[in-house]
Amino acid sequence: MESLTAFLARVQPPLTPALVVRRTALMANLAAMQAACDAGGVRLRAHGKMHKCSRLGRAQVAGGAVGLCCQTVGEAEAYVAGGIADVLVTAPVPPWGWPRLAALAGATRVAGVMDSPAQAAAASAAAVAAGVVIDAFVDVDPGMGRAGVAPGDAAALVAVIKGLPGLNWAGIQAYCGHHQHLLPAERAAAHAAWTDQLRGLLADLRRAGLNPGQITGGGTGTAAMDLAAGVYTELQAGSYALMDVEYGDLGDLPFQPALFLAASVVSARHASHVTCDAGHKALHPNGPPPRVLVPAGSQYRPAGDEHGAIIPPGGAAEGGLVWLQPGHVDPTIALHDALFVADEDGRLERWPIDARRSSQ
Amino acid sequence: MESLTAFLARVQPPLTPALVVRRTALMANLAAMQAACDAGGVRLRAHGKMHKCSRLGRAQVAGGAVGLCCQTVGEAEAYVAGGIADVLVTAPVPPWGWPRLAALAGATRVAGVMDSPAQAAAASAAAVAAGVVIDAFVDVDPGMGRAGVAPGDAAALVAVIKGLPGLNWAGIQAYCGHHQHLLPAERAAAHAAWTDQLRGLLADLRRAGLNPGQITGGGTGTAAMDLAAGVYTELQAGSYALMDVEYGDLGDLPFQPALFLAASVVSARHASHVTCDAGHKALHPNGPPPRVLVPAGSQYRPAGDEHGAIIPPGGAAEGGLVWLQPGHVDPTIALHDALFVADEDGRLERWPIDARRSSQ
Repeated sequence: MESLTAFLARVQPPLTPALVVRRTALMANLAAMQAACDAGGVRLRAHGKMHKCSRLGRAQVAGGAVGLCCQTVGEAEAYVAGGIADVLVTAPVPPWGWPRLAALAGATRVAGVMDSPAQAAAASAAAVAAGVVIDAFVDVDPGMGRAGVAPGDAAALVAVIKGLPGLNWAGIQAYCGHHQHLLPAERAAAHAAWTDQLRGLLADLRRAGLNPGQITGGGTGTAAMDLAAGVYTELQAGSYALMDVEYGDLGDLPFQPALFLAASVVSARHASHVTCDAGHKALHPNGPPPRVLVPAGSQYRPAGDEHGAIIPPGGAAEGGLVWLQPGHVDPTIALHDALFVADEDGRLERWPIDARRSSQ
Repeated sequence: MESLTAFLARVQPPLTPALVVRRTALMANLAAMQAACDAGGVRLRAHGKMHKCSRLGRAQVAGGAVGLCCQTVGEAEAYVAGGIADVLVTAPVPPWGWPRLAALAGATRVAGVMDSPAQAAAASAAAVAAGVVIDAFVDVDPGMGRAGVAPGDAAALVAVIKGLPGLNWAGIQAYCGHHQHLLPAERAAAHAAWTDQLRGLLADLRRAGLNPGQITGGGTGTAAMDLAAGVYTELQAGSYALMDVEYGDLGDLPFQPALFLAASVVSARHASHVTCDAGHKALHPNGPPPRVLVPAGSQYRPAGDEHGAIIPPGGAAEGGLVWLQPGHVDPTIALHDALFVADEDGRLERWPIDARRSSQ
């Protein structure tokens, strides 16, 4: 593939700041992850929380993904409307959300996770009222302390779910968010420790006559280990498709940077820096700072909500473009409404970021 | 006004996380700022970058604001479509933006700022091509180093603007973003020093026979001083309408907290904390942390993009609501699509956050 800089030089977005996807890199990433999953005999359930774009999700399913994950009810609704036939909501569903998910089920396979009998009861009531079945995963906490039952409490919740109408116990979810961005050596150690625990939990469940259909979890950072562990039946990776500074800097992930932000130089009155039109409302500050790709060698510093400094100017002239790689892709995409997907010749296609949070 | 906690207890948003506006507080803030401007003989041009809601902007204009400010071309387009007849874009306009602003001018009064002859030329060309006149402000840098000419360079740019077709030199903009959140004593000193410089600049311009129509600038933090300074003819304050932790904690601003975020408790498996469904995609991390209002005495810590920890639980139960005040209102609103405006009895009205960045 031609150099990134030569490619970017041919891209002229219609407006700025603009999120631009290098189509060849995206498609390579999609193919690479699908191939790895296929080789490992593991289903890919790409995580749509990252890209929030049903067009991209459909490409993942067309390539072999069994469906999408999402984090919110709004995302699930948008993905179903956007043609995805199988969605798993991986974050806990608030009470208002179960009736809305139940309304999606039927032609679409809808699954959610739970970590308490009350959540299971709410899901059951919604499913019964809608005359559908919701697939229910027991969410197991791998030590993040955020959501999920302790491994020792999983069997009891499985029993509750199996006793409720409208629910089908689909399996176990375990998502190790706290492992995804560890450096390779630490990541391997943490992954191994947790996977041993997970194997133990599964053995306990099977001894009790409870056989989980799917073991769903994992992510971009731990994907290689997830696929080799022989435990997960379904991988939930998301960021691999587009990548960002945070994942790229781990150094060992076999995916290409595919997402870039173009900004215009809007003020150039200082020798030390120029000002571009990308600030806190275009580049989410969570994670490492964005990396400046063009001009090479310069740094970016936010200068408010709609401004950023490029230091030094490095040849960036007023009216021209600068290019950055976002620090953390997921929350940055949540600030935007469109991805501009660019072919190698610079031709652009607009993909709406349509899987927005519920707002009504 | 009844206590905030008693009011919030009556509000049941249809979904979470949800931005909820206390209507009585909002209307009181709008009235208070308009009255202060009227008393000071200064026009209020409320800044729409903060709320991004044309419904709220219309309320400001109905109350006496001369129009709105905005930061982006997309906001200007949305505000004009939403019925605002007079918009000033206060951030520099990138080259692609001038033709789009020119397309708005005509029935709508459209104004922009500039800090270079090249920007003036781009604006002029766009205005001529569209057969309209764009009001052009010279943006003066009060020492932020972000955009704007040095005061000594203002006259030369005025001359350029006056020499170009399609532009009407409307005046001077000076926005002291770096003063807005200073504590009162520092804020007063910084404001006084800059205002002296601004008076000097205006005297120089008048001596040269250049009489600016409007001197536009200021903000919520410096509003009282801006109105008393006898220099600004137009105040650009925005945050006063809804407020946030960052402005509220300055301690001396006469506006009430009016914007709150409701989140659901989605997991409650620990004695130390509960998990709610508000994370980095609902509460922008720029600025101070969000303040937990309900349960009183607890702290909020983000736990990812769609999760947050409430520490300690303080009585917050699974399935219930927690209430927070956002740390910094502007970028938080940019993550959402709706404001739910609540009457004192808890009745809700949905106002779309429609002034989004251009995405096509």
